[in-house]
Amino acid sequence: MKIAGNIPIREVEENFINIQPIQAAGRLTAEAMKALIVYGDGYSTCDQCRKPFRLDKITKPPIAEFHNDLARFLSMDEARVTPGARRAFQAVCLALVNKGDTVLVSALGHYTEFLAVENAKATVREVPTNDVNIVTGDAVAQKIEEVTREQGKSPALVMLDHFDYSLANEHDVVGAAKAAHQYDTPILYNGAYTVGIKPIDGKALGVDFVVGSGHKSMASPAPSGVLATTSEYADTVFSTTQMIGDVTGRQFGVKEVQMLGCTLMGGNILAMMASFPTVKRRVQEWDEYVAKSNYVVDALLGITGNTCVSEYPRKHTLTKVDTTGSFDTVARTHKRRGFFFSDELKQRGIVGAFAGATRAWKLNTYGLNWGQTRYVADAFKEVAGKYGLL
Amino acid sequence: MKIAGNIPIREVEENFINIQPIQAAGRLTAEAMKALIVYGDGYSTCDQCRKPFRLDKITKPPIAEFHNDLARFLSMDEARVTPGARRAFQAVCLALVNKGDTVLVSALGHYTEFLAVENAKATVREVPTNDVNIVTGDAVAQKIEEVTREQGKSPALVMLDHFDYSLANEHDVVGAAKAAHQYDTPILYNGAYTVGIKPIDGKALGVDFVVGSGHKSMASPAPSGVLATTSEYADTVFSTTQMIGDVTGRQFGVKEVQMLGCTLMGGNILAMMASFPTVKRRVQEWDEYVAKSNYVVDALLGITGNTCVSEYPRKHTLTKVDTTGSFDTVARTHKRRGFFFSDELKQRGIVGAFAGATRAWKLNTYGLNWGQTRYVADAFKEVAGKYGLL
Repeated sequence: MKIAGNIPIREVEENFINIQPIQAAGRLTAEAMKALIVYGDGYSTCDQCRKPFRLDKITKPPIAEFHNDLARFLSMDEARVTPGARRAFQAVCLALVNKGDTVLVSALGHYTEFLAVENAKATVREVPTNDVNIVTGDAVAQKIEEVTREQGKSPALVMLDHFDYSLANEHDVVGAAKAAHQYDTPILYNGAYTVGIKPIDGKALGVDFVVGSGHKSMASPAPSGVLATTSEYADTVFSTTQMIGDVTGRQFGVKEVQMLGCTLMGGNILAMMASFPTVKRRVQEWDEYVAKSNYVVDALLGITGNTCVSEYPRKHTLTKVDTTGSFDTVARTHKRRGFFFSDELKQRGIVGAFAGATRAWKLNTYGLNWGQTRYVADAFKEVAGKYGLL
Repeated sequence: MKIAGNIPIREVEENFINIQPIQAAGRLTAEAMKALIVYGDGYSTCDQCRKPFRLDKITKPPIAEFHNDLARFLSMDEARVTPGARRAFQAVCLALVNKGDTVLVSALGHYTEFLAVENAKATVREVPTNDVNIVTGDAVAQKIEEVTREQGKSPALVMLDHFDYSLANEHDVVGAAKAAHQYDTPILYNGAYTVGIKPIDGKALGVDFVVGSGHKSMASPAPSGVLATTSEYADTVFSTTQMIGDVTGRQFGVKEVQMLGCTLMGGNILAMMASFPTVKRRVQEWDEYVAKSNYVVDALLGITGNTCVSEYPRKHTLTKVDTTGSFDTVARTHKRRGFFFSDELKQRGIVGAFAGATRAWKLNTYGLNWGQTRYVADAFKEVAGKYGLL
């Protein structure tokens, strides 16, 4: 079945339990889907655009109110929506970082942070993790000192993923923020894996910027994201244009340089707004989702030869496991090789494990109810049993 | 009726003929709407993401093929999708323009070009229009010489809107490209008001970059856009990351710095793809749409006191008219002031004229069939007749 031309239909969420690592918390709510249908036309949000002609000031639909709600939700002073978390990293880097500067990221930092720094013609240095793959405040302090000694000036910015994309280990944001501020360096909190699923209090964490991803963790379409900051940094990162046309004398008022004027229009912002009541509710249920994550991981660890590569017990629903000692021993002689495993799961109505992977691989149990959680755990045990691995 | 919480339903395209200046050519096709529904989840496009793990390389759905089609459609060598035309301006500026450089834009250039230049810490200079509000190649050459004399070096880039946002006058892109290249300055073609509605041949125009807006003229959701370039500039604007993690030794392969890695995911890219067969077909019907535009403008000009602020006869479906000598004379004494005019249109099933405006205002007749075209023209005459203006 095709949508148009050669574009296939997709039936994943409709027919399967999906444990894909990055899709789980981005799935749209029914309300978001309705918003996409109604506001699919990009400029549909702009029917009632009035002075000062900036998207985040529009009151019908209540986009301005949503921006205030977002800032409050993150305990920050100001918030803007962006076309994805990476565009928020970019905005902060372009506003704060000069050519030749150094920015610290974690050794488990996401590649988009590297690119945002490169975009600002600056260089990245990594803060190493400790022996249990955690970035500590001490490590941040040490790296700042190292860079300062080398270059005669401290880094322009620290970016730290609260839970990283690779292991979803929890890193010491509070410690890192204290360390950064000791050296007068601002810190950006990458909440791509937290904002929208776990309660986040930017002020309590002590960070200067909070970035979230709509399509990763806020049940919103791609691209969408949020950038929140303190009143201290708002004027810098949300500075308004100073350009004046030399011929026309034109000026562009309140248009913000790093936001490139109006930000997310149409279905993407309206879907974020439509999902927001659900998002605010679901962050309160985070502990329950973590409990379900541990339930599934425990089932995997009950199979001989399996290990958990992520920190354990889990503090997140995204987990990297290693099944080299179990499922991979089957893959070595199975005619479908590593695909036997995803085949077996698919036959049981479970998708999202990387097809063909039987060594280190990731799963994300976010959004499953207890029935589905037990079903997934049992499915892993069943597959193991079928191949004599228990 | 609400979608969720306080988000109202929107019924514009369903119930009215919409002549809003910037909405007309961005309205989704039925196929795009289907794509939004199916691929609304942001990461839904990434089910089959395989090495080298970059969105524009994904073959299922056929995103890679679409990128090739897009480049061919614009007669350029390489194309990428971006979150809006402004993000394409930004990418080119960050890649080509250094701090303190000068970039030429037109005196009728869009504000997002100014912001993109400011983003690169450079400065804008405007090329003046001639006495009939057209930017000529000579004017570009003259401004380049002026800047070069002043600064001892030529501008880093010229950006020119083919049809500008204000009057939708056609500017001399071919002449401007020749002028720019005489001074070894690259030129960016801003096709926000052409790409997707009018056939565009970037090679024939002689430009180095072609930028289009999905939500403005390609029947695609916001944000979406396209950046196409020649093989000469592809390596510069689509350069891949050079960052190396100093602790981990990590590198990120083919991720492109200015694209920030993967670009448009989910419903936005798939809707662009779904609309593309229609877009390819409709650009061939451009002359017919221009004829309809002239039909409506002629009706307005048939009302005593009206003038066409845009060049006339029209070469575009977007037009600025001045009705100070007609409808505005009514507004001066009407109890609804300028709103009488939008009220009258709305009663006739027509929306999109800026509510309250009766002096200079814009309309866009793109997408109307002949029946609707005649109906709109008649409605203007009818309102004029009702108030004794004919």
